This record gives sequence, C-alpha cells and structure tokens, in this order.
Amino acid sequence: MTELRLPRGLRDYAPENYELLELVRDAFVEEATLHGFQMMEPSSLELLSTLEAKSGPNVRDEIYHFVDKGGREVGLRFDLTVGLTRYYCSDRSLPKDLRLAAFADVWRYDEPQRGRYRWFYQWDVEIFGPRSPLADLEIVLLSNDLLSRLKVEVEFVVNDRKLTESIIRESGGENLSEEAVVEAFRALDKLDKRTKEDVMREYELKGHDPEILESVINRAESGDYELTDRLMKITALLRDMKVPFRVDPRLARGLDYYDSFVFEAKSTTHAELGSLVGGGRYDILTRIFGRPDSGATGAGGGVDRIVEAMRGIPRVRRKEVAVVYPSESEGYAVIVAETLRREGIAVHLPIHDKEVSIQRAFQDAAKKYDVLVMAGPKEAADGVVRIKMGPGDEILVPLRDAARELATTLGVWGKQ
Amino acid sequence: MTELRLPRGLRDYAPENYELLELVRDAFVEEATLHGFQMMEPSSLELLSTLEAKSGPNVRDEIYHFVDKGGREVGLRFDLTVGLTRYYCSDRSLPKDLRLAAFADVWRYDEPQRGRYRWFYQWDVEIFGPRSPLADLEIVLLSNDLLSRLKVEVEFVVNDRKLTESIIRESGGENLSEEAVVEAFRALDKLDKRTKEDVMREYELKGHDPEILESVINRAESGDYELTDRLMKITALLRDMKVPFRVDPRLARGLDYYDSFVFEAKSTTHAELGSLVGGGRYDILTRIFGRPDSGATGAGGGVDRIVEAMRGIPRVRRKEVAVVYPSESEGYAVIVAETLRREGIAVHLPIHDKEVSIQRAFQDAAKKYDVLVMAGPKEAADGVVRIKMGPGDEILVPLRDAARELATTLGVWGKQ
Repeated sequence: MTELRLPRGLRDYAPENYELLELVRDAFVEEATLHGFQMMEPSSLELLSTLEAKSGPNVRDEIYHFVDKGGREVGLRFDLTVGLTRYYCSDRSLPKDLRLAAFADVWRYDEPQRGRYRWFYQWDVEIFGPRSPLADLEIVLLSNDLLSRLKVEVEFVVNDRKLTESIIRESGGENLSEEAVVEAFRALDKLDKRTKEDVMREYELKGHDPEILESVINRAESGDYELTDRLMKITALLRDMKVPFRVDPRLARGLDYYDSFVFEAKSTTHAELGSLVGGGRYDILTRIFGRPDSGATGAGGGVDRIVEAMRGIPRVRRKEVAVVYPSESEGYAVIVAETLRREGIAVHLPIHDKEVSIQRAFQDAAKKYDVLVMAGPKEAADGVVRIKMGPGDEILVPLRDAARELATTLGVWGKQ
Repeated sequence: MTELRLPRGLRDYAPENYELLELVRDAFVEEATLHGFQMMEPSSLELLSTLEAKSGPNVRDEIYHFVDKGGREVGLRFDLTVGLTRYYCSDRSLPKDLRLAAFADVWRYDEPQRGRYRWFYQWDVEIFGPRSPLADLEIVLLSNDLLSRLKVEVEFVVNDRKLTESIIRESGGENLSEEAVVEAFRALDKLDKRTKEDVMREYELKGHDPEILESVINRAESGDYELTDRLMKITALLRDMKVPFRVDPRLARGLDYYDSFVFEAKSTTHAELGSLVGGGRYDILTRIFGRPDSGATGAGGGVDRIVEAMRGIPRVRRKEVAVVYPSESEGYAVIVAETLRREGIAVHLPIHDKEVSIQRAFQDAAKKYDVLVMAGPKEAADGVVRIKMGPGDEILVPLRDAARELATTLGVWGKQ
C-alpha cells in the first residue's frame, strides 16, 4: 500500500476550507471587475533569474527552485507581482495604462508554522503606467471594497516613504550619513514586532545616534510632520470615501523596492493576524524589467489570513436538498434529480449499492439533508414527487413543477 | 536588465485567455454544486512515491520532480485524480459516499507542441464509495450538463471494458493467452490515431492472430454484442435524459487503471480536438491507496481544449463604462467612480499623469469605452453627472441616481 503523507509544509485545501477560499475568490473577482482590472494568471514556473530580479539571489533560500530536465534553473513563483510585472514589461504592445489582477497560489520554502504552509493562495492587483497618486488611491479603494464585501473590519495604515525620509533627515541634521538613513528605515520596520528599546539599542550598536530614532518616533506619534502632496491627495479622498485609515510615518514595508506610497490593512477584530493587505508604489521594479517609462503600484494579500479574519462572521447556510428513493425506482430518481438540476436546483442523489426500502432511504436522508424529494414507485407511476420540508409538512407536485415549487416556496436555489 | 523569457513550455494565461478559463471555471463550479459535489484542491506537490502509485515509475519521465531542500523526492501533480483519491483514502472519518470536485492546474514534462504547454488547467470530478452504475451515470450527466452550459456540442462514447474483454475472448477462442487479451486492448486503444491495417500488423508482429482483432472490430462496428448490465442501466437513463451518445466496445482509455465503465466526449464541431472529457470507473486506485472497500468513478478534462471548442460561439460583450474628467475635477471623478462601483456598476477611471482638458479626456475615452460618465468641474459643483451613451444621446442625473440609471436604462451591470 502506498504511503499517504504529503511533503512537509504542504496541505490539501479540504472542502470546508476551499469553500471559504472560494468566497474570497468570488469577492475578489467581483471587485477587480468593478474597478476595471483584467484578471490573468502569470506562469507558475519562472526562470530563477527572473525571480531573483526583485529580491536578489538571497531569494533562493526562501523558494522552491530546481534544475529542470533541459538544464534550466527554474523556480516556483513566490508571489504574483513578479510575474505580472514581467508580463507587462515583456510586451510593449500592451496599453501603457493597464490594470491587472490575479488570484492564484504561490510557494515559499519557509519553515512551516501553525497555520503557515509552503503553498498558499494570494490575491494581487497592479496598476501599470501612471505615477499619479490617483492610481495608489484606486488600489487602496479596491482593497477596502474587497474587505468590506467580505465583512472583514480593518483600519488602513498609509505612509509615503519620502515623508519618513524627510523626518529622519530633519532629526539627524545635515551631516547624517546615507547608511544612518537606511538603518533608520530598517529599525522603524521592526517596531511592529519588537520593543522600542530593543530597536533603539540595535540602532546604537550599529554606530548611529539613537536620539534620531527617538525623535522620528516621537514626531510620528505626535503628528508633528507635514504630509507630502501625494499623501495629501490620497488621504483627502480616503476621507471622502469613508475609508477608515491613519497616517503612520513609521510604516516602511520592508526595504525591497517600494519608492514612496506604502500601505497596509490591519484587522480591527483579529490583531494577531498582522496585516491582511500590503502594498504600495514600486516604480523600481518596472525599471529593472526594462520599462523605466512606466510607473507601478499595487497590493496583495494572503488568502489564509483573510479567511482567518472571516471566522466567526455568520454566514447563511444553503438548504440541502436530496432525492429519496428505494432501489426499485432508482431510474426515476435519477430523472427527478437531473430535471431539478437542469432548472438550477442543487440536488443530492444518495447512491445505494445494496437494496434499500423507501423507509430506510428516508431514515438515512432525514439525518443529513434539509429538504427531501420523495421519488418512490408510486410517484414514478404518476410522474410526481412529494416534497418534505419537515414532519407533516409535505406537498405533492408534478415533476415539471417541482423546481419552481422548491425555488419559490423554500428559497432553495443553486449557486447562481 | 533582467531577461523576460519564460522557461520552455510555460506561458502566462493572459487576460483574453483567462476570461475564457474563468467562464469554464464558473460553469464547472455551478454544475459541481448542482450535482452535489464539494469543491476542494489537493496539494500541488506530492511525494514522488504517491505520484508513481497510479502509473508506475515511468511517470517520472513525464512530470516535474526534484529533491527538495529537506532531501525529499517530490513532484508537481500531473493530474487531480491522484490527489483527490489520496485525500479520500487518507482520512477514514470522511463519509463513505463522497463527491469531490476540483478545478486546478497541473504540470507535465511533455515535449511542448502548438497549443500544448507544460502547465495547464484541468477540471475533475470523482464519486468515492458506491460501485453502482448510477454513480458512473451521475459523472456522465455532470459532464454533459457542463458542456451544454458552455454550448459546446459533443457526442459521448461509452463502453464497459468487461464487454470488450468478452468480445476479445469470444473471438480468440478458449485458448487465448492473457497476453493476447492485453495486447488486443492496447491495439484497440490505438485505432483512434492510426490506421486499422497498421494496428493489425503490429498485433501480428507481436505473435497474435490479427483475425481476432478483425473480428472484434467488425463486431464492434456492426453492433453484434450484448451490453453488460452496467451499460444497459447507464444507456437507458442517458437516453431518458436526452444525452447524445453511442456505445463503442473499441473504447479502452489506456490500460492504466480503468476496470469496467469508461467514456469520452468528442466535439461534434471540432473533431481535431480529440476527446474533451474522459473518465470511467477505477476501483483499482482506491485499493492501491488502502481502501479496497470503496469504489471510485470520475471524469476530467483539459480546460484548454474546452476553450478551443468554445471559440466561435458568440458571447455577449459587456458594455464598458468610464468616468471622464479633466485634471481639475479628478477628486470628484474618483468619488463618482467609487460611488458607482459600490452600487455594482463596473467602472473604468482612466488616470492622467499630465494635465488634461475635459475635451481631450473625452476624445481619448470615446475611442475605448461604450458609455461615458462625464464628471467635470460644473458637474462636481452640482453633484451631478452627464451620462453619454452616444452622439447626442445624453442625460444629466444626480450622482446618487446615476447607478440606478445606468443599471436600468442601459442594462450595464457588474459581474453579479
């Protein structure tokens, strides 16, 4: 017998989890369409050199990569931004102003942890072309509408890295070294996970004045700074559109490739989940891929986290309908089930390998399903069904009327 | 600058192709739900030993496999049946009668050809548990309803391998060797791609009497055989449900693991596509995975082929709506776009990096979009928009009524 394990860090999306994934996917496709994005999916496998373009050769330590049978170094995609950006930059016939969206799986060779796997789904949206703050704003609005649709409550945190840099430079004085600026960014990025004292001590150990950091943090907390033009435009319209947000100059979002605008969305009900959405402007990446004439701004998020944030939100369970029949009228039962399905009613047809009586079939089905459509030999002879909604609550209808009866009386309906 | 190629045999699902993929996916999820299947997705990576369980070690030549950083031999899934069966067999707490469906991507290390890639999407349905012909029938009905929903015209070809075997044995006489039977199956399986003469010559070269093959082919063509009980039940109900089909005892569907019932669906409009759906009963695989108490029957198909078969079928194009604005009222334009989207109207918001006048914005938008929602400074001052459906066809409405106006007058609506 074959072993049934999965490789370490992998998992199946079992039906109960896939159902939630599908809810997020539906909401995402809907919002992407409403906001004028085109759905696509970049290749699952890329040349290793393409994957390294964004994050450098160190990315090898964190991804699945291998040499294929043709001797090519390839890797499984670790996010969707790289693939979408490569796609956009590789085809100059594409419109310069292009909105792309993807909902797909990615792979990371991380150490697996509770609830964190080496294979998971992400959603991702990118606007290629414009550098206007309106493009950044559109990304935040889509993120907000996606989470609202899913009833996930969040607060957005927005920033412009140029604002942070100016605060750092003002705090450090004219002679501040470039390295002290970069390290200050790096330190601010750690404040989410570690104590302020710890982060300041590390900054000092690297040979920089911790007073600078202290001053940046104080000014960020007290609001003692002026917004950049970009942030001013974005925040004014976020307020108009009633998107809950705050500005925080400490938000850096890693050091990889963000230029100016950055943002995150944090769950207000599940703080432990960290950020549910992250994004910003990354004009640097289009430059690396040979399109310095194009801006790029986008956002994405892990689907598992959104699903976690959705737990506890009440959802309407669909009523489950089953056709109940004894062995002798199984042919009629198939006709009943299929007739209902073709009219849009989702129907279970339990299958019996052994002979069963109508009583036995009824007892089994009554435990599992909400609505029973009885299709015994008597019903077969008359071309009717008996619809049982509960004890004593039963109607007899011709098969041709059964779908309408189920749909209208019970509010039972297929997915669409 | 980074190279922008993809590894050999890979591709992006660009927006125009993803749109068709999404149509197939929507139809599949809908039909799976109507037929009582639960959607799930098995792991993308499996232990190599699991992948070999179905098709033997030769499968290595046809898949992507590698040693991961933990020293494990792993491979990318090459179909969805193996993963779903492993999932079902590995958890004995699952109901014995379980219907699972998956729509996901798979990888094969084949030689790429025109229209054939090393990464592509498949759909797959399986009924685990019952051995009744009703389960086989349910699989065919779902396949039929899926293709009908997509307006793809097919004819189903159905067979029972036990029927074929009995014809072979009757034609070969009592002393026919087991090897001659197996080789006869293998030969019949090739009739689709090669000439009868060619296939018969090969059978003879292997030391078997070509007369046997001739007789099987003749009896298959003339209908000189009796259906098995299983085929009798299935075909009677297919006829009742008006599913177009024929019985063909030559249909073998490879030698891998099918036991008895097998079927395919062939496009009646695109014969060159081969079969769009293939499936059958494979109780052997559940046995290999340690659940000899459970039957298994299922079907699947490549999404690319269905998409090819759908080309040429007319589809309704949604009208594209855009908000048109000069730079000076860009804030109002965002509010207009977002207000419409929140009421379910899909809206484009072209973004200008340079100053544009309303005339220029209008000229650009008129070339690309069907319906223009004008949001200039005058409209902003009054909280209204002008909706332009064509030359001279224009109405002025308050913003709060614009979504209803667009939805009802124009039949413009979001995805849902």
